[in-house]
Parts: sequence; C-alpha cells; structure tokens
Amino acid sequence: MNIGIIGTGGIATTAHIPQYIAAGANIVAVMNRTRARGEAAARQFGIERVYETVEEMLQNESLDAVSVCTPNALHKDQVLAALAAGCHVLCEKPPGISANEASEMREAAERAKRTLHYGFHYRHRADTVLLKRMIEAGELGQIYAATAVALRRRGIPGWGVFTDKELQGGGALLDHGVHMLDLALYLMGYPKPIDVMGHIGQYLGTRPGVGLMGTWDAETFSVEDTARAMVKFENGASLMFDGSFMANVGPRDTMSVELRGTEGGATLFPLHLHTEAHGALFDQTPAHLEHVDPYAVQIQAFLEACRHEPTYEQADQAVILHSIIDRIYEQA
Amino acid sequence: MNIGIIGTGGIATTAHIPQYIAAGANIVAVMNRTRARGEAAARQFGIERVYETVEEMLQNESLDAVSVCTPNALHKDQVLAALAAGCHVLCEKPPGISANEASEMREAAERAKRTLHYGFHYRHRADTVLLKRMIEAGELGQIYAATAVALRRRGIPGWGVFTDKELQGGGALLDHGVHMLDLALYLMGYPKPIDVMGHIGQYLGTRPGVGLMGTWDAETFSVEDTARAMVKFENGASLMFDGSFMANVGPRDTMSVELRGTEGGATLFPLHLHTEAHGALFDQTPAHLEHVDPYAVQIQAFLEACRHEPTYEQADQAVILHSIIDRIYEQA
Amino acid sequence: MNIGIIGTGGIATTAHIPQYIAAGANIVAVMNRTRARGEAAARQFGIERVYETVEEMLQNESLDAVSVCTPNALHKDQVLAALAAGCHVLCEKPPGISANEASEMREAAERAKRTLHYGFHYRHRADTVLLKRMIEAGELGQIYAATAVALRRRGIPGWGVFTDKELQGGGALLDHGVHMLDLALYLMGYPKPIDVMGHIGQYLGTRPGVGLMGTWDAETFSVEDTARAMVKFENGASLMFDGSFMANVGPRDTMSVELRGTEGGATLFPLHLHTEAHGALFDQTPAHLEHVDPYAVQIQAFLEACRHEPTYEQADQAVILHSIIDRIYEQA
Amino acid sequence: MNIGIIGTGGIATTAHIPQYIAAGANIVAVMNRTRARGEAAARQFGIERVYETVEEMLQNESLDAVSVCTPNALHKDQVLAALAAGCHVLCEKPPGISANEASEMREAAERAKRTLHYGFHYRHRADTVLLKRMIEAGELGQIYAATAVALRRRGIPGWGVFTDKELQGGGALLDHGVHMLDLALYLMGYPKPIDVMGHIGQYLGTRPGVGLMGTWDAETFSVEDTARAMVKFENGASLMFDGSFMANVGPRDTMSVELRGTEGGATLFPLHLHTEAHGALFDQTPAHLEHVDPYAVQIQAFLEACRHEPTYEQADQAVILHSIIDRIYEQA
Amino acid sequence: MNIGIIGTGGIATTAHIPQYIAAGANIVAVMNRTRARGEAAARQFGIERVYETVEEMLQNESLDAVSVCTPNALHKDQVLAALAAGCHVLCEKPPGISANEASEMREAAERAKRTLHYGFHYRHRADTVLLKRMIEAGELGQIYAATAVALRRRGIPGWGVFTDKELQGGGALLDHGVHMLDLALYLMGYPKPIDVMGHIGQYLGTRPGVGLMGTWDAETFSVEDTARAMVKFENGASLMFDGSFMANVGPRDTMSVELRGTEGGATLFPLHLHTEAHGALFDQTPAHLEHVDPYAVQIQAFLEACRHEPTYEQADQAVILHSIIDRIYEQA
Amino acid sequence: MNIGIIGTGGIATTAHIPQYIAAGANIVAVMNRTRARGEAAARQFGIERVYETVEEMLQNESLDAVSVCTPNALHKDQVLAALAAGCHVLCEKPPGISANEASEMREAAERAKRTLHYGFHYRHRADTVLLKRMIEAGELGQIYAATAVALRRRGIPGWGVFTDKELQGGGALLDHGVHMLDLALYLMGYPKPIDVMGHIGQYLGTRPGVGLMGTWDAETFSVEDTARAMVKFENGASLMFDGSFMANVGPRDTMSVELRGTEGGATLFPLHLHTEAHGALFDQTPAHLEHVDPYAVQIQAFLEACRHEPTYEQADQAVILHSIIDRIYEQA
Repeated sequence: MNIGIIGTGGIATTAHIPQYIAAGANIVAVMNRTRARGEAAARQFGIERVYETVEEMLQNESLDAVSVCTPNALHKDQVLAALAAGCHVLCEKPPGISANEASEMREAAERAKRTLHYGFHYRHRADTVLLKRMIEAGELGQIYAATAVALRRRGIPGWGVFTDKELQGGGALLDHGVHMLDLALYLMGYPKPIDVMGHIGQYLGTRPGVGLMGTWDAETFSVEDTARAMVKFENGASLMFDGSFMANVGPRDTMSVELRGTEGGATLFPLHLHTEAHGALFDQTPAHLEHVDPYAVQIQAFLEACRHEPTYEQADQAVILHSIIDRIYEQA
Repeated sequence: MNIGIIGTGGIATTAHIPQYIAAGANIVAVMNRTRARGEAAARQFGIERVYETVEEMLQNESLDAVSVCTPNALHKDQVLAALAAGCHVLCEKPPGISANEASEMREAAERAKRTLHYGFHYRHRADTVLLKRMIEAGELGQIYAATAVALRRRGIPGWGVFTDKELQGGGALLDHGVHMLDLALYLMGYPKPIDVMGHIGQYLGTRPGVGLMGTWDAETFSVEDTARAMVKFENGASLMFDGSFMANVGPRDTMSVELRGTEGGATLFPLHLHTEAHGALFDQTPAHLEHVDPYAVQIQAFLEACRHEPTYEQADQAVILHSIIDRIYEQA
Repeated sequence: MNIGIIGTGGIATTAHIPQYIAAGANIVAVMNRTRARGEAAARQFGIERVYETVEEMLQNESLDAVSVCTPNALHKDQVLAALAAGCHVLCEKPPGISANEASEMREAAERAKRTLHYGFHYRHRADTVLLKRMIEAGELGQIYAATAVALRRRGIPGWGVFTDKELQGGGALLDHGVHMLDLALYLMGYPKPIDVMGHIGQYLGTRPGVGLMGTWDAETFSVEDTARAMVKFENGASLMFDGSFMANVGPRDTMSVELRGTEGGATLFPLHLHTEAHGALFDQTPAHLEHVDPYAVQIQAFLEACRHEPTYEQADQAVILHSIIDRIYEQA
Repeated sequence: MNIGIIGTGGIATTAHIPQYIAAGANIVAVMNRTRARGEAAARQFGIERVYETVEEMLQNESLDAVSVCTPNALHKDQVLAALAAGCHVLCEKPPGISANEASEMREAAERAKRTLHYGFHYRHRADTVLLKRMIEAGELGQIYAATAVALRRRGIPGWGVFTDKELQGGGALLDHGVHMLDLALYLMGYPKPIDVMGHIGQYLGTRPGVGLMGTWDAETFSVEDTARAMVKFENGASLMFDGSFMANVGPRDTMSVELRGTEGGATLFPLHLHTEAHGALFDQTPAHLEHVDPYAVQIQAFLEACRHEPTYEQADQAVILHSIIDRIYEQA
Repeated sequence: MNIGIIGTGGIATTAHIPQYIAAGANIVAVMNRTRARGEAAARQFGIERVYETVEEMLQNESLDAVSVCTPNALHKDQVLAALAAGCHVLCEKPPGISANEASEMREAAERAKRTLHYGFHYRHRADTVLLKRMIEAGELGQIYAATAVALRRRGIPGWGVFTDKELQGGGALLDHGVHMLDLALYLMGYPKPIDVMGHIGQYLGTRPGVGLMGTWDAETFSVEDTARAMVKFENGASLMFDGSFMANVGPRDTMSVELRGTEGGATLFPLHLHTEAHGALFDQTPAHLEHVDPYAVQIQAFLEACRHEPTYEQADQAVILHSIIDRIYEQA
Repeated sequence: MNIGIIGTGGIATTAHIPQYIAAGANIVAVMNRTRARGEAAARQFGIERVYETVEEMLQNESLDAVSVCTPNALHKDQVLAALAAGCHVLCEKPPGISANEASEMREAAERAKRTLHYGFHYRHRADTVLLKRMIEAGELGQIYAATAVALRRRGIPGWGVFTDKELQGGGALLDHGVHMLDLALYLMGYPKPIDVMGHIGQYLGTRPGVGLMGTWDAETFSVEDTARAMVKFENGASLMFDGSFMANVGPRDTMSVELRGTEGGATLFPLHLHTEAHGALFDQTPAHLEHVDPYAVQIQAFLEACRHEPTYEQADQAVILHSIIDRIYEQA
C-alpha cells in the first residue's frame, strides 16, 4: 500500500511513520507547508517525495491511504480531500473541532466507501484490549457509572500550538482529556447521551508558572486549562469527566477510567478488577501483560481495515463524542 | 445547662450523650417511643427520666437544649417542637428530607431565637479544622473545582432503618454521601448553586450479596445504592459528587473531598496540600495532628453557641444543601 | 445437648468450652486427672461437675457429646470409651498416633452410629472455606501438585508435653505439621496415597537455644524437630511436605499450602489465586473476608452434625492421614 | 590457547564466545551443521574458520579447548570426540541425557587427561560464590535439608528445540530445573544419594496458552512441564525439588535454593542467612556484592583449569546428578 | 527486702513501684512532700506508710533500699541521706546536676559500702543488652566513633517541672539527651574524655507553639531546647551528641546511638550491625528479640546487686558523665 | 570566549569540557604533563592544541578563562599563573590544601581583577538552588544548627591519586567531605567560625578490604579515612561534620546536609522541609524538580560571571573553609 503523511510534527514521526514502516507499508510522500520540515522528516525516514500542500500531494501521488497529523482545526478539510481522492484515512485525535465537522467526515467516508479511523491510541493498549474483551464477555454486566480523569498538575505543553484555541479548538478537554473521554465511551459501548453539564475555565494558564512539559506562553494562552463534565445516557448510565492542563493537584498526573457495572468494576491504568463470586469479593489484576506499542497496533488495525469493506463505526462514534464536547464548550 | 435527648439509637449513645457528659452538661431526660430502649440508655448513663413522646418530655422538663437523634423523616417535627419549647437544638444529619423542611426549621429557629446546629461531625475533625483555617487564610486562593466522594463497596448497613426510604428519605446520597457533600460545600464557603445534574439508581442493593456492614434485606431495600451529581455555582465553581452504598469498586472505601484553587489544592482524608512557591511545586502534609473526637468538638461548639446570640449560618446552609439534594432526587 | 469435656488444658479452654457456650450447648462436666485443674476450669466457666476419670464421667453423666482434649497418645482409648457410651465425639488433632488407632476409632464410630470429628480447625478458616468452595466449583481444575509447609524457626513449645514422644507420638510432623498436611489433603479431596518418602530428624532440639515459644528442655526432647516428605497419589498427583519445630530459616514462620491445578493455582495463607482467562494471566485475592473464629465454626459444625445421621468422612480421612504419617516415621 | 566452538546458538554467542574473547583466548573456529549460521557467528565475532562437522573441525584445527553448545542429546558424542582429539572441554548443561552418558564422558576425560567442565553458571554468581565460601568455613554447620525450586508460570521457551524430548532429553527437569538441582547439590558438597522419588507430568504444555517466553507449539510439545522430586542422601540429608516450565503459580518466577544446617540456614536468590549467636537469632544479608558476569567467571575458571593438572570433580558430580535425574524420569 | 520510695511522680509509679512488687520486694513506705500525693500512690499500690520528709522516713523505717524519684536538683541530698542511713540506692537519671554532686554521691556510696545505681533504663533494653554482649565479644573491634542523638520536634513536656532550670538543672541535654549520651558512653566502655565542645541554646521554647507532649509554658521556660556537643577521648575516639526538646526536624523523633569500630559498626534503635567477613560486607539484624520491660530488668539488677558486695562502677561512670555535661553547659 | 583546560583527568572530561562546549564557549587548548593523555582528550573533543606545561599554554594562547582540574596540591600555583596571565579561573574543589593557599589565590584574583570560582557543584543542584532561595526568603529563619555528613562504607577510590596525602592534601575531609562542609556553610551564609574541634584518623584504609569504588592500595594509603568535627560560629550557630572514606556503616552511603532554623528546618538530599504554620506542623517536599546537570549550571554561572565586574565572594569563602579544615587537621 502506498501511504502519504499529512503533517510531520512529533506525532507523525513517533506514532505513524515508524509504525507504517514496521508494518511493511510503503510511505511514498510527506506533506508539510514548511518545506524544510517536510524534507527533514523525509530524510530521516528515507521517504522520496515532499509536498507543501495536501492538494498537490493527492494529485501527484497514487495513494492508498493517508495519515492526517496536523493541528485539529485543519483535520476536516484534509480528511475530506483525502477521502475525495479515494484514500483511506487515519486522522489523529480529536477527529475535528465540532460535531458538524465529525458528521461531514462521516458522510464523506461513506460516500467515498473508504475507511476512516481516528488516532485514539489508548484503545490499543494491552490492558485496554483485555478489558474490552472482558466487558464483551459480560464480566462487568451492565455498566451504569463511569469516571474519566485526565488531570495534569503543570502539563501545558511548551511546544507546538497546544495553547492556541484557533488552531486546536480547545485544551484540557479537546486536546488532552478527549483521550480518556473517548476511552470511557468506547468501553461503555458508546451509549447515546441525553444530557450534558459542563464546566470550562481558565484559572492558571494565563499567568506564568512552573512548567513540567516545557514553558508555555501565558500571554497567548487561549484554551481552557480546566474542563469538567457530567453526561447522562439513554440507558440510564452516567459519566463524569475531570480534566486539566494545569491544576493544584497531587504529584502524579492521572489518566484513568473507572467503570462500575452490575457484575463487576474495573479501573485503568493499570487494570484492576473488582467482582463478587463464590460469596466473596475479589480483586483481580493481570499478572503479565505483553508490552505492546499501542501506536503500532493502531497502524496495523488501520491497514487491516483498509483491506476489507469499510465500516463506519469509528466515524459514527466521533459524531457522538463531538456532540458531547460541543455541549460542554457551549456552557463555558 | 439541662439537656434532653430525643432518640436513643447508636448515634445518640456514641456521639451525643457521652460528649455532653464529658462537657459537663446535665442530661436530665431521654425520649424513646420504645420505653425499654429509653430506659436502657438512661440506666447506662445515669439519666433520671425517660419519656415516650417528645411532647411529654418538653412539657415536663425545663430543658435548655435537646439533641435530635431519630430517623431522618422525624427530624423536622421534633426540631420545630423543641424550638417552640424554647430549646436550642442539635439535630443529627441530614437536617431533614427536603429543602422545604430545612426552610421551616430555619424560620422556626429565627422565630424562637434559638441556636440550631446539625450533626455534620466531619467538619470537626482536626484535619478539616486545619484546612478550613488555611482556606480562610487564602492558601488555596479561589476554589473553583471540588470533588466529594463517598463510595462504599458493600456498605449497606445491616441494622437500623437505613434501607427504608420512608423513614430515611434516601440512602447513598441523603444518609451517607451527605457528609462529604456538606463538607465540600462548607470548605468552599457554601456558594450559591445555579445548576444541578443528578443520577440516582438501584443497581446492587435489591439482590442479596456479600455485606461488609452486616446483612441487609434486599427485598425491602427501597433507597438508592448509587448517587452521582454535578453542581455549578454562581461564582463559576463546580462540584462533582460520587456516592454509593454498594458498588464494584476497589478494596478500600473512600470518603474524600478534593479542592482545587487558584493558589493551591487540597485533599481530605488525610490532608495533603499542593502548591507552587519559590518557583517550585510543593506537596505538604501536616506532620502531627492531635487526635480529637470530632463528636466531642461538635458538642462543645453547640454548647458554646447556646451561650451566645444565635446565628443561623448552619440553618441557612442546610437549606442550600437540601435544595441541591432535592434537585438530584428529582432527576432519578 | 449435654456436653462433657475430657482434658482441660489450653486447647480445651480456648477452642472448645467458650465455643460450646457461645453455641448454646450445655457443658455439664469436665474431666481432668488432676482434680485441681479440672476444678479451676469448671469454676472459670461455671460448669457443675468435675471428674478425675473418663469412666466415672461417662457413667455418672448422661452426655450427648464429648470433646477430647488430652495428649495425643490418650485419644484413642478415650474416644472409644465415649463412643461406646453413646456419645458423639469431637477429638482434638491429631486423631491418634497411628493408622491402627485411626482405624479402630473409625470402626467404633460406625458401630456406635455416632459422629466422630477431629479438631483440624484450619479447615474452618474463612479463606479455607472459600477456597474449598472454589475448588468444588472447578476453578482449579484437576489438582496435580501440592506443597504443605509448617516451618518454625524456634517454635518448640516451652509448655505442655509437646516434646514428649511417649505422650505426643511426634513433634514437627504429628503435632504441628499435621495441620498443613491435613489441610492440603482435604483441599485435594483426600486422594489415595500410593507411595511415601520421609525424612525425620533431630538436629537442633536436643541442644539448648533461643526459644520463641518459651524455653524447652533440650535434655528430655524426644520428638523430631524436622519432618519432610513426598507423597504420590493414585490420581497422579504429588504432595511435598516440609515441617520443623526448629530450623535456621527466615524471620517469619510459615504455615502454608500451595496447590497447582490444570485450571488454576492457589496459595494459603493468605489466599491468592492464579489463573488464565480471556487470553491473559490473572492474580486474584479476596478483597474482604469476614473475620470468623475457626474454632467456633468447628464446634457449630460438630453440633450440627450430631443432629443428623452420622457420616464417617472425617473418620475415614484420619485413617489415610495416619497411614501417610506412619510411613514417614517408619523411614526415620 | 586455541579455542573451537561447537554449536553457535544463543548460549554460544552470549555466554561463551564473548567471554573467551574478553579473557584473551583465541577462538580459531566455530562449527554449525547449518553453514550459514556458523558463518553468521564467525562474522559477528571475527572468527576465521567455519566447519559443518565436529570431526572436520577437530582434524583441521590444532585446538587446545572446545566449548560444546549444542542440543543436549548431542553433547556426549561431541565431548568424546573432542577429548579424544586432546582438547579440554567446556560442555553446556546438562552434561548429557543420562547417567550412562555422564559416566562415559567422565571416563573419557580421565583417559585423555583433559579438563571436563560443565556450564552450570549459577555456581559462578557472586552470591553463590560467597555462600560456598561461608559453607566451607562452617557457617551453616552440617546441611541436612535442602530445597531447590525452578518454577515458571508460563515459561516454555518459544524458540529453539526446548520442547523436543528427542533432542533435549527433558524439559522442566533436565533443561531448566537442572540448574537449581545442581546448585543445591554443589552447595551441599554433592553427597551420595540413596533414594529418589519423582513426579513427572505434562499438564499445561500440550494445550495452547499465554506464553511469557514466546509462543510454543502445543502440538509437538513432548517434554515434561512439571517435575518434582525428593532425594535422600547417605549422610541423612534430604533434598526437595520442584520445577515447572508452566504452572498456575504466583506472578514472579522462582529460581531458588534453600539450605538448612545445624549452625545456620541460607537462601538464594538473593542471599539471606539465618543464624543463632550471642543468645539471639540473626538475619544477615550481604550489603554489596560486586556485579559479575557468571559466564565470564565460568570461562576464566575453565581456562585456568586447562593450565593445570586436570581434576575430575565436575565430571564426577555430573554422574551423580544424572543418576538422580534418571531415577526421577523412570518414575514418570 | 524492705524498700522505700522517695518521690511518687510518674516515673516512680510506672518504672519503680510495680517492678519492685513484681520482683517480690516489699515496699513499706513512700515519701512525698505533698501528703495527698503520697497517699494516693500508697493507696494505689497497697503500701502501708506515707511520709512527708526523707528524714522522717529513714528514721522511722528499717529500709534495705530506696528509690529516688524526685526532681534532679534534689537527688544528691536524698541519696546522701539514704546511704548514710545504710540503704542501697537506685536514683533516677540524671545522677545529679553536676560532677561535684556525682563525686559526692560516689564517695558516700563507698563510705557506706552500699550499692548506688542510676536509672538509665535504655541500658536494659533487649537490643542494648545484646549489643553490649557483642561488643564485649569483640564484634565491633575498637570503637573509634560514636554519635548519640536525642532529637524531638516538639517534645517539651507539658507536665512536671521539666522546663524549670532550677529544679531540673537542664533540659534537652541533662534531662532527655542524657539517656543517649550515657548509652553511647556505656557501650564504648566509658572511655576517659579529654576535650569537650558544647553548644547550648534556647531557640524555640521561649515562644508558644504546637506541643506534642502537652502544652508547656513558654514564659517560664528556663532550660535549653538545644544541646550539641563533641567529645574527644584519651583512646583517640570521638563522640558527637545532638539533642533537642524542640527543633524543626523530621516527622519522627530520634533516639539513637551509632557506633563505628574497626571490625564492625552498629546502630540502635532498632539494632543493625554492619561488618565485613568472608570478603564481603554484611548487614545483620536480630530476627527476634524478646520483649522485655527495661524497667523491670533495671529493678531486678539493682536488687541482685544489693545482695552482693557493692561495686562502684555506675557511680564512677556518673562522675565522668557529669564532667562532660558540666563542660557543655559551661560553654553556653 | 577562549578557554584553556589545565589537567585532563576524569573531572575535566565529564564536568568541564562537555559543559563549556554545550555553553558555546571555545576551548582552544588543553594541558597535561603526560602528552598522550592531553592528546587523547583533545582528540575526543576536537580541541586544537595540546601543551605539557601551564606556562607554555598561557604564553602561546590568548585565553580568556581556564579550568584547573589537577590534583589538589597543584591548584594554587596554576591558579596564580592563570590569573597573572589575565585569565578568569574556575578551579576544581578543594580550592587548595591550606588557608594560606586560599588567601594567596584570593589576593591574586583581586590584583588581577579576574573572577575566581571553585568547583563546588553541589551548590548548583536544583534542590540546593531551591533551598538557597527559600533560605534567602526567610523560610528557615535564623539557622542555628547544621549537620554535614559525607559517609562512605567502602568508598576509597581505586583510581587516581586520592589516597596520596602529598598530592591530595587529605582524604575523607579535604577531598570528599569538603563538598558537604562547603554546602552547609554556603547555605548558612558562611558565618564566621570561632572554634573548631576535629578528629582525624586512619582506621580501615591501611589494611586491605572490600572496595566498592575499585581496589585501593592499602600499603600506600596515606590520607585519613575518618574525619569528624564540630565548629562554632560567631553568630551562635554550630555545625557538626562527619565524614569517611571507609567505615562500618549502613548499606547506603550518605551525602547530606541538615539545617535547623528558628522558623523551619531542611534536609538535603533529597530536599525535605519542616515548619510550623496555622497552628500545625508541616512536612513539605518539592513535587517536581527539573533534572539539571549541576556541572552545566556551574560552567554557565562561571561564564556569566566572567562577563561582569568580578566579585570575590567564592574566593573569600574558600579562605574561611580552608581555615576550618586547617584547624581540623591540626588536631589529628
């Protein structure tokens, strides 16, 4: 398969290109509107051609699939262009910056009859895969309560465009928390939301402070540092979300999902299970989990999907996910 | 001061009577509609007179203050009667079973010009007292996010009337979670709520199972085992609440409050503080905290208040608290 | 039920008498050949009559059941006498001091149509009960390997007759290790042994040393301080046993059983489970186990059994157990 | 010294060749019946000549010593050929696949007046060397009880010929457990065995499952996954052995030896010592042990021995070791 | 033996009287200048006679021995009186408040030919006794460096006369640190001091603060809260001492002695040993130490000494100890 | 800036040269009296010219600054030569080998109007920098007690000239302990010493033993293995120092400084703080400290200082430091 890469920032060079190569796919071109950056990536990975625009790349190459690794606000147009050009698409998370965008992409995928995947790599961790399998086997019963947490103490990225509302569409929620929000929904089976309450705020990011992920510019900080929400679903379940780019919390950052079901409960990460059986309560942990690169599994799953009739499950889920996020931002 | 005790169940004999005695107050009578129980308590603590009705006790005794230690649904009428009889009142938590009841009690207190306290003893723990002092000194800055958790794995009480909706008014929220909900609000300064989302459910309590606080009757279990909520306040802050009588969660039950402010963050229990100073992040814990009996402090504070012009702060807070709880139950 | 107690040493007063009383049984007499000791026990527990011989007690009292709590070498005759007198019998462990004795007792029980139980209280611990239930539900599959360990570093009892071969029949194996040996066999379903290798030795007990359970008399020490064995069973399984009264081992004494089955493995104490499921390996522990007094459960089970048609399961198991022990001692 | 390497599998390239080079020995040739593999190893380490048969190599080269690193069933003939050609021999463990083979090799060594060592590298760990020194200084007194454990939860190697009974002669015992069995015997001074009981079984290896050392082929799995034994010695001591390639045991694999003596006890790994002195019990651990490569020490010891009159201690020990193993397999 | 008790404060009733009784000694009288207190103690322990002055007691009773349990400044005169009256004397620590006093007492003991012991109970702990035995067996070789630490974070006693320089003679050094100072000297064999440097200060005790041993009166606080010293001995060794009643140190108070010798090192409490042997470094801890009441051992040792010809070892050591303390205070 | 390096031993190549390069400085020459060593270093780092004498280098090069990385006894002359040649100087610790040398260097610096820094890199660790900032902000109040510890169990370096009194001037104190001694003084604000007591000894280094930093030559060992001291200052504070190259102490070597002040206390390493506030005691630790290379910071600080008017703070401190060390050695 011939692969093109749109955007050559960090995520492209750590989570897409090496994994395509390892999977035996043929990356024929990269695109970056700053030519020098595109060329650097091409040189590093031995890729032949470099383009400055998506259009040019799609016209000149005969691509089977593309990865979209650009700032969030650019995803939608690039995905649409790639699908229109007959490419399968693996688009980095978040899908876009609104439910409307997610819907447009979903429609386009079906129209093009192409696979459209999103880069929620937490789904591909070994512990997540195991838990998903256990949920599908009924080990948790009906899941009625979920909690997704993505708290960083001083985790505003000091590089890239992560603090630019215009380009990223959001911060603690859309860019960082979206991983745990998607993961919880995915493990719950993406139930239908019926009510959303949100709290969006800028409390610490707009003044200078200690940075644990580099030094950010407090003056231009335009995204939320705090995002909290509660969601209720048609099936009676509820989800609580708590996310921050920066907050006065404990020494270890938290990326976690907790699920409570009628037959068992589970927490990630790491995976713990809590059940009742034989008239006793049990705590259970996997003794050994193979160390896998979730990015590699993600690329393999995408390439595998490209070889079959497309389904639109991920594209549909993105619409639900963004509809929840839209509702949270509306209440800012 | 002459004290009367209304209700002689566990909480009266462990958290009120010995503490009054230790504080030098004079308990002259107890009331229990089952005479034998009242007499047992009287014998145990050397109290002279026993009554079967509140009215009888109030008429025959010249009481300065009473403690109300009966099931939740009985609080309001007994409090009103005691206030009308000119008594100061310390009423066990929750104040009542609705915001209307809380309002009535608050009005009656003012009318009677008597002190009305509620038994939220977590407020009187040494770590809580220290944190409250630090908050008032500005150590956390503006508190904009709070989380109150009251999760029990298998904690439906196997005694008393805790599973009887009629008498208790509720379970995981009204009877158990209310402690952490009040504590978070108290530490936040009881801001004005403007929006409430709630999730109330019965998932595990209605079928038999392992009981860690005795064996309850699943057949007659009529309160909620699960209560979750998000509250937004006029000052922009939000609070998340998560409570259960029973849930498939980890091995240790959780009673906790987490607060995040613009200058620092704190968690209870135990107390941890998280701040930024001197260009560094700090974690701070109290090295030594005197072990105090919060029930004793509660009684001392009540007796002290009785000696002064009454304020209605706690009575006012009860109205806010119950208005939130009402909203949560409405969404069941 | 009218109960008589034969022997009033430590085990009688801590593990039998209080438990009978708590279970509502009526202890009418105790027997101790030293009258003063019998009277002390009677006084302590409010028991009416004291005898100096078993015969006298059995003749003068109309007993439903007796507990035999004397040195091991006396068990057999006393059990036979009690059964002959129509009593149900709970005999402390070990059953006797040889397979022949165990057989005699088993025959006598059947002849008398009376219940004969032995005091292996480890079987009644909450974790053992749970594991037994899980084994019966097939959670371990076929158990093919077991290890029973009863290692004490300096655990020769400094009181009683524990070092007297004549009266006790043995030490590290017969008196102490027998608990773990029985427990392993019980959990394995008491399979039929076909081969036994044993190692019995006196290495440390015959010279003075540090005593952690009092100071014993090295001069008169006549039992084994070391006992090790391997047993093979008809069903292909094997069991390894390692026991000591005294040995140069680590700081914590070990009382443990480990089982390996085709579907899962387990260790006691505490209980850990190891399985494979959903394509992963799991470690599992009970989150909460009710604290029960295994002696109380033992008495309750005995009294319950007395109310029904007797089965001879425990009596049969004692024969197998002693046949293994006999073989081990033969190889000394 | 001129060295030849017979077999170029993993053990040769990680535990022999680099260590010879580091010790300044001159590796002049390697042999592998698959030429390409032999050449790969030669290229990697800059070795000049490659042969496809042992005979060819021995004829064409003037070798002082060889390492034998082939599957177990091939050891004996290759060792005999090398000794006959006047070479000193370092043969990987196990020595061969039977006591007869071990005897033949021992005789041949004496006949050839050459050093014959076996690759039991656990003997050369720093902690083992220290313990051996302490035992020889009498710190443990007379060792009367030993336990050797080699338990893997899911440790069937997914590479090589480890599951091929024909080529390896055995699994959990002969290939893996033999390390701990030899180590215990070595530390005990290789006493003379007088009785052996064994239990050999295939319980988990013949059906597919989670592999922690790669994925093995359950269909062709022909060695034992379980091996247990008890050995009694002329000096009165006993040894228990417990080994598995795969078993439902705890999360950490165990490779350990425990020794109990009249003056002290010891466990490996890590090294702990337990003694009585000054009227107290002591636990002792080495505070710092130099990190040494046991393979390097093994090669150095072999080269050193080659420079002196040969002793046949290791060759003699191999006969005892294999006689025990033979007896265990006979009872399968 | 007839015993008299001089002073009935806490130390007398917890560390002398019950221990005399347990040892079978006959306490015939107590003395307290506040009669009510003396009578309370007499009643509690069933002692017949109570006196208000030492003289009166010594005249009216025929005493074999007395314990002196009064404030430090009173020790000397009472000890002299008791010795003069022919009594053996066990005087609480510190011996007195100066080297002159210690000398006077030592002379008086010899004159009276009576045993004079001091209440340094740390010498009688099981771990100290074991270490002393090991030192005498040469396990540490020559001890050339010692460190004695007695640091309390907020440990000014809120009761008694501990902050009264007049009555106690000192604080962090004389009353509290003296325990560790004596212990280090005792374990070193009380070498002869040749040079002393001291640092005595009041930094925290004179202003109010958090008290962990009750609330002390900062206004009247007249002893040192800080005492540090270095001592050099004739044998070339040195000792460092660091003590505080109150200091901004870590969460756990420290009472410790560290010794470094040419053959080994040791720390108390708990006991750890550090040696080199067999070409390796070892860390060693006692596995089990019997729990003994050091006060009981102290009384037994005193009573035992009274039965023999008196030695004046402790009396001599007190002179050395006080000479060091005098030098430290001189440099305040 | 043009930089010259005097001495090319380990410290030069790990702590100076790479850090100059990283800071963008231009190293134009290195000096080593053994030409081959100088050339090796030059080759490794791409430095153009190599000299065998300091004089030659200073004459032929136009240097702005030099680092002096030679044995301690050579520092002074080389520093004087470099200053005289107009160079700024960064001299490795210790400054020299006596207070006289330190004074000469300080005078020379002022005469030359050049920056003179010493290589006390512990001052530049992130935790030290933070603590210094907090001390300057008054968080500890007045520091009245300090303890500096530099204890190694078996830490005599097996390389270099560390055991050569002639070249190094000292061992446990001058070469190793000087780091902690300087650090304590630096954090205390280098108060003026008024009295010093010292203990210098050779107890273990002169006989062979286990070496944890290589094997040293016991025969030629001529420095102290033990150094202890107490220092009193004009401001009333005291400092205790305890250092060893080798001692029978616990398993982990200790490099630490402890400070006690009137408002708070601190320990390094890691950094812990102990304070009293809000009527409670607090323990505080930095939650996150950026990992910095203290050597890099040291070079940056030196280069920065070279760009400004010189101050002689470090040169002055060296005089005080060496005056203390002189006094300690005098008492050997």
